[in-house]
Amino acid sequence: MFMGASTNQGMDIATKSREIIRELIKDDVKNLNPIETDIVERIVHSTADPEYAKLVSISPNFVNVSIKALKNNEDILTDINMVKSGITQYDGDVYCYIKDEKVKEITKKLSQKEPITRAAAAIQYAAETGFEGIIVIGNAPTALLKAIELKETGELNVKSIIGVPVGFVGAADSKKILQKSDIPNIITNGPKGGTPIAVACANSLIQNSKK
Amino acid sequence: MFMGASTNQGMDIATKSREIIRELIKDDVKNLNPIETDIVERIVHSTADPEYAKLVSISPNFVNVSIKALKNNEDILTDINMVKSGITQYDGDVYCYIKDEKVKEITKKLSQKEPITRAAAAIQYAAETGFEGIIVIGNAPTALLKAIELKETGELNVKSIIGVPVGFVGAADSKKILQKSDIPNIITNGPKGGTPIAVACANSLIQNSKK
Repeated sequence: MFMGASTNQGMDIATKSREIIRELIKDDVKNLNPIETDIVERIVHSTADPEYAKLVSISPNFVNVSIKALKNNEDILTDINMVKSGITQYDGDVYCYIKDEKVKEITKKLSQKEPITRAAAAIQYAAETGFEGIIVIGNAPTALLKAIELKETGELNVKSIIGVPVGFVGAADSKKILQKSDIPNIITNGPKGGTPIAVACANSLIQNSKK
Repeated sequence: MFMGASTNQGMDIATKSREIIRELIKDDVKNLNPIETDIVERIVHSTADPEYAKLVSISPNFVNVSIKALKNNEDILTDINMVKSGITQYDGDVYCYIKDEKVKEITKKLSQKEPITRAAAAIQYAAETGFEGIIVIGNAPTALLKAIELKETGELNVKSIIGVPVGFVGAADSKKILQKSDIPNIITNGPKGGTPIAVACANSLIQNSKK
């Protein structure tokens, strides 16, 4: 199984795509290690957008910390179900609480005190359940900010964050805050990001953790 | 509920995002009708990539045919589960067969005769089950080509196709073929596309079909 391909034709397409991408982004990845390069190639594969090779920024400890957690089959938490449903080859557990009835209750309760999104409340709920592992944010900057806040207050044991929320409101700022934190992380600079980028990064790490 | 937002803060973010996007892409959408404009705005919202306003192409009958099918709660078929899991507000049924055991069997059987991907075999399987409705392709060009082929042979009753597969191998060509067919369609020109684009388009149409 290479990049989700399960047949010979699927494999041929994935392999040819990689060759094209390597040529397109070779100058952008020349200072990256092999696993970091694989992550970036896979992001470009999933978006057909070579600009991502210029937007991705990876903290020095991100790959080692993440691979170690994945080798131990530690839990993965995603902000939305689209991200969860794209992570299909992991031997550990992948959680997403945004549609959970308890999260709807927490959202109502918390929003009486301060404005909150359900995506952020779902991260709060994960912390309350004792979540420990890797967090993957492909959509909501508010969820990313909540994860950073709870890590800093010691309420959430997050090993690393794939932080690639998308949008013109808050996403770029939330990623800058993650980048300045001491949490091992990968981000995309600026408003661009999204679920395929999050999934590509998670799946690259998972595949590399099995080697 | 506006663009998936379920809280006041979520709503504020979605509204502000729309204002920014309208300003960014106003020249690109000036010849589109209100629902077509909504689709394009929502695609740009989901990717933070204004280039999509230039890449999207919509056939004249696409919106009317799709809205009619959605008002009747006709079935939706997606190529991969990431697309299915993003379509959360539909009163009809959303199907994706790519992980179905029967599709794995069909893939093995068909691949003895000709190269095939599992995504394409899943469309073949849907046709065999008598699927009728809207097809949403956010990933696999091979699935899109199979849907067009089965429509042309009369084996698949597809009302319209959201055809936005992604990638450097086959995606652009498959979308051109869809555009030249007589199937009501929306495509993104070139290699770019993907699951957020597919989901944004489907969700815009679903929301508009409820008005």
